[in-house]
Amino acid sequence: MNKLILTLFSIMASITSYAQSNEELSAKIIAMEKTALELWNNGNPSGYLDISAKDVVYFDPFIEQRLDGLDKLTALYESIRGKVYVDKYEMTNPFVQSVKDMAVLTFNLNSYVGTTVQKWNCTEVYRLESDGTWKIIQTHWSLTKPELNIKFVE
Amino acid sequence: MNKLILTLFSIMASITSYAQSNEELSAKIIAMEKTALELWNNGNPSGYLDISAKDVVYFDPFIEQRLDGLDKLTALYESIRGKVYVDKYEMTNPFVQSVKDMAVLTFNLNSYVGTTVQKWNCTEVYRLESDGTWKIIQTHWSLTKPELNIKFVE
Repeated sequence: MNKLILTLFSIMASITSYAQSNEELSAKIIAMEKTALELWNNGNPSGYLDISAKDVVYFDPFIEQRLDGLDKLTALYESIRGKVYVDKYEMTNPFVQSVKDMAVLTFNLNSYVGTTVQKWNCTEVYRLESDGTWKIIQTHWSLTKPELNIKFVE
Repeated sequence: MNKLILTLFSIMASITSYAQSNEELSAKIIAMEKTALELWNNGNPSGYLDISAKDVVYFDPFIEQRLDGLDKLTALYESIRGKVYVDKYEMTNPFVQSVKDMAVLTFNLNSYVGTTVQKWNCTEVYRLESDGTWKIIQTHWSLTKPELNIKFVE
């Protein structure tokens, strides 16, 4: 019987420890994304690679089909290391929808390079891993209204 | 003490009932998506609206920024009811990543209309609701390599 009570308390304790408010989790996920994005904007893809899971899947507007797995994402990102520079960005309306061990971050992004702005839609899915870290398992970048992208800044 | 044991058993029972294998869940989610898509391809957006949650968020290549909430998605979809017809589709490499109460479906899609094919990237996030149904909380449609879309069928 003591074992049952212990099991019950341990279940309750783990539920409580995971029951982080959505507000706290939102702030954490958005901060992770911004850290990776700011490195990206300085030519460094390691921020994203470090927080992507082995089974990550990935879409962007330049590839023929979904890319599967961290190895393939690493190959793609290493091929453009040092080639992407963004002067300034605005992440608009970041929003997180979550359950205990998965969180979906969506946002729009304006990336300014010189006198141009490129507009993006983004969906990131983060999963709570067994070691307690959150990792990206799905990334989807697309151009906002691609027929109108890129714009010149007024 | 009986109450504690009952609570423990009820927690265990609910864990067991949710512990559906990823394979079964994948098949269920892909089937839900295909049912909605086939209605969509015949001008009927109700399939998607019926399985979207109140807090759904949505991206497609034709909108200026993320659309938030089922009311706005309904307004958008009702405005094109009866206007979208696709002769034939191929969903390629559908893949589901899941935890107990959230599942991410990603796939590429070829939509054939007459002699043209439009190529799509898609991410759908489904959440297990308190009534036991799965609902879409995030939809992201984008064009594959938009600068090359639409293609003529050879």
